[in-house]
Amino acid sequence: MPSLQPTLVVAGARAVDGDPVDIVIAGETIAAIVPAGEAPADCDRIDAAGRLATPSFVEGHIHLDKTLLGLPFIPHIPGDTVALRIQAEKELRRTVALPVEERGGRLIEQITAFGTGSLRSHVDIDTEVGLKGLHSVLRLKERYWDLVDIQIVAFPQSGIMVDPGVADLLDAAIREGADLVGGLDPAGIDQDVTGHLDAIFAVAVKHGVGVDIHLHDSGPLGAFELRQIAARTRALGLEGKVAVSHAFALGQIDDFEFFRTAEALAGAKIAIMTNGPGPVAMPPVKRLQAAGVTVFAGSDNIRDAWSPYGDGDLLRRAQIIGYRQEFLADPDLAHAFAMVTDIPAAVLGVAHYGLAPGNRADIVLLDATSLPEAVASAPRGRTVLKRGRLVALEGTLSPRD
Amino acid sequence: MPSLQPTLVVAGARAVDGDPVDIVIAGETIAAIVPAGEAPADCDRIDAAGRLATPSFVEGHIHLDKTLLGLPFIPHIPGDTVALRIQAEKELRRTVALPVEERGGRLIEQITAFGTGSLRSHVDIDTEVGLKGLHSVLRLKERYWDLVDIQIVAFPQSGIMVDPGVADLLDAAIREGADLVGGLDPAGIDQDVTGHLDAIFAVAVKHGVGVDIHLHDSGPLGAFELRQIAARTRALGLEGKVAVSHAFALGQIDDFEFFRTAEALAGAKIAIMTNGPGPVAMPPVKRLQAAGVTVFAGSDNIRDAWSPYGDGDLLRRAQIIGYRQEFLADPDLAHAFAMVTDIPAAVLGVAHYGLAPGNRADIVLLDATSLPEAVASAPRGRTVLKRGRLVALEGTLSPRD
Repeated sequence: MPSLQPTLVVAGARAVDGDPVDIVIAGETIAAIVPAGEAPADCDRIDAAGRLATPSFVEGHIHLDKTLLGLPFIPHIPGDTVALRIQAEKELRRTVALPVEERGGRLIEQITAFGTGSLRSHVDIDTEVGLKGLHSVLRLKERYWDLVDIQIVAFPQSGIMVDPGVADLLDAAIREGADLVGGLDPAGIDQDVTGHLDAIFAVAVKHGVGVDIHLHDSGPLGAFELRQIAARTRALGLEGKVAVSHAFALGQIDDFEFFRTAEALAGAKIAIMTNGPGPVAMPPVKRLQAAGVTVFAGSDNIRDAWSPYGDGDLLRRAQIIGYRQEFLADPDLAHAFAMVTDIPAAVLGVAHYGLAPGNRADIVLLDATSLPEAVASAPRGRTVLKRGRLVALEGTLSPRD
Repeated sequence: MPSLQPTLVVAGARAVDGDPVDIVIAGETIAAIVPAGEAPADCDRIDAAGRLATPSFVEGHIHLDKTLLGLPFIPHIPGDTVALRIQAEKELRRTVALPVEERGGRLIEQITAFGTGSLRSHVDIDTEVGLKGLHSVLRLKERYWDLVDIQIVAFPQSGIMVDPGVADLLDAAIREGADLVGGLDPAGIDQDVTGHLDAIFAVAVKHGVGVDIHLHDSGPLGAFELRQIAARTRALGLEGKVAVSHAFALGQIDDFEFFRTAEALAGAKIAIMTNGPGPVAMPPVKRLQAAGVTVFAGSDNIRDAWSPYGDGDLLRRAQIIGYRQEFLADPDLAHAFAMVTDIPAAVLGVAHYGLAPGNRADIVLLDATSLPEAVASAPRGRTVLKRGRLVALEGTLSPRD
């Protein structure tokens, strides 16, 4: 049972409604949120100096095993198709000296100092790397348990039908600690929509785990695949446990295709992840929300074989998505913020989430007066708490034991 | 004649080719760039600690009179069309307590600490505000002469034909110190392509100044207007003195329209400015360059009535443009960097620009090992010199006399 004795007070913060508050923490838990000045004086204090207090960010889509952070900048290897990029990445992976534990660890330290408290990481599973990447990320999960909660998707980056043996590896990955089973372009990569989806949904049903599928296939083809995923989700009773990442197709189809696809997704309670991609069409966030489809955010590639961009700052990601979607008014900016906090927390099933008594003391202090301003300006120098412990003070990671 | 006596050495910088160098400064001028360690020891020094030295950034499009910086965050006033946004802005302008000198001054301090050394600012000219905004920005130009070189466009934000009197005000604005004449959606706002363009080109010819036209009009309409602008530019011998800002149309037309429009622009030496807009199509940078059309970058709106976004960081702007245009390989990332440095320097006619002996000592030190890495990561905490004087040290503005 957690101690009810206050251990730390975040003093003089600004609640999202503007009220000045003290946040009283007992161990890993928020014990109380009281008007500023009313917290007990006899415990450790962090002076929030009027900064906006929000819950920690929740990363909906990252690849801890792919990042090249910690290495000198590596020029991008060209390759215009998803298949060519997969090949380029495999070649690079064979030569990279720094192990996943080092690169992924750097990334975790970087993003937790930005304010990320929970994340969903995809991990490549193929017949060349086997479960090595998974084992590395499982070690990262253990090593950084105090900074971030990690959820792992077993991701068949090289396909399933075209890489015989991967289906069994996905099954093994779940047994060895992955939390969800992933998928990738059933048509574009595997050339077999039925075979690909049958394989991953079989793993999901066998182990009672969720599904998160990368879908880059475009236009009506991608929309068809989304409806296929929705049909299987309903048939197997997996409503609320399935997500599709990217789903560019939703931004590339006519109204007839859009509405029947959105209806299928809403009926199957399938959530869509977007990172606000630069060059391609993206899922229209407000139209999807209006149709009952949840859209959450993730960083995706961070300085890896797929992209030289990305730093894992989810507040900047909310800004990128808002900028791409023309979110200008305050409620829209606040929605962009929810896409990196409350919405992915619900999708990932983060327990005891949010700034309220009884919830986990996973807190970010932002130099802004409101959520809309925070998204518009993405202030740095954040102070971050995880499980009631100081993770970063004004942008600088605190030493760990 | 500038002193040849060294006054300052930027020691141990990294040149863009990777070589370690000392940059020797004499007064406002770069006297020499020598191998690291070979600079004279008997003058003031800044330790670059291996940071990448680049020329200052050149802002191709900003609105110093529009920003609301310095005020509390003001929720965006909705309005979906350009006309509605103009109306919303006018209403807001009447109630804003803080004068342009304060708001624009804040913006100048912010962007010069990011590394901007020269800028082109549009200034609203209409029958309500008259030349007041121009006078304010002229005062800013004088007050901040040591931080930034300012070029001013007299911008008819409320139209010309629909706001009788503006044509005369544009003429007066040039007489009173504006450097170029602007324009705005000859079709979309003024409903008179011929009348609008005749009016602004008359001012340009009369005073021998350049032209920079805001063009949001879309698709074939916008492309028609671009060709109209090109035809006038050639007929009046203004090649190389005309720019068009935004020109979304170039990203919205078929190949036939694109190539005949690009050919017209190239023939008239018209440069295109883009800020890498979020929700709309943008000019395809590499296709235009290949067709002989110069494309440069600008920030455009920074926390104003048009947008809550924007901070004026041109390195981040290069990143946004690169992200939107899928610039991944090193040469493309370097091109994005040129879009905020060499290219706008040429368009604006910035004299003595670039890191070479005899040029002005307008220098930025970046925590990156190469230009591509700088664009991909947009590191903060920059050290900035203007006219051989320290403007900002690791992100913090130096005190001014």
